[in-house]
Amino acid sequence: MKGKIYVYLKKQVLDPQGKAIENALKSLGFEEVKSVRVGKFFEIETDSSFSGSAKERMKEYCKKLLVNGVIEDFEVEAVEE
Amino acid sequence: MKGKIYVYLKKQVLDPQGKAIENALKSLGFEEVKSVRVGKFFEIETDSSFSGSAKERMKEYCKKLLVNGVIEDFEVEAVEE
Repeated sequence: MKGKIYVYLKKQVLDPQGKAIENALKSLGFEEVKSVRVGKFFEIETDSSFSGSAKERMKEYCKKLLVNGVIEDFEVEAVEE
Repeated sequence: MKGKIYVYLKKQVLDPQGKAIENALKSLGFEEVKSVRVGKFFEIETDSSFSGSAKERMKEYCKKLLVNGVIEDFEVEAVEE
């Protein structure tokens, strides 16, 4: 099974890294840039030695390790094989 | 205009962060995990004060600032408005 997990800061959380990139782009002459927000993603491959759906399993990875639920949200894209 | 840029390590480049996450997931009991690779993405909003297509403009951001072409590849998803 292959899947992708996208993790991003909640809308109401400040993103200083994004802000820094926005300023850097502007100073390079890309003055049209209005906002930048940064997130991360995980490409995960597994074998099939687990029960239940791939998507649910990926959500468990998020809750147990990959995502800080206080400040982050996530989306899961699972490709079952 | 809104767009997303996905940046990930080239296949042949080692990803120690991904490897660490893979081991952490396994030690939490998710023993089915075979590989994890980590990437980042940027959500960018701009106004329309530039010439040319949004996608081409985003590629310029990548080449000038966001992507290290030696070890990273990128994909651009532009939503012109």
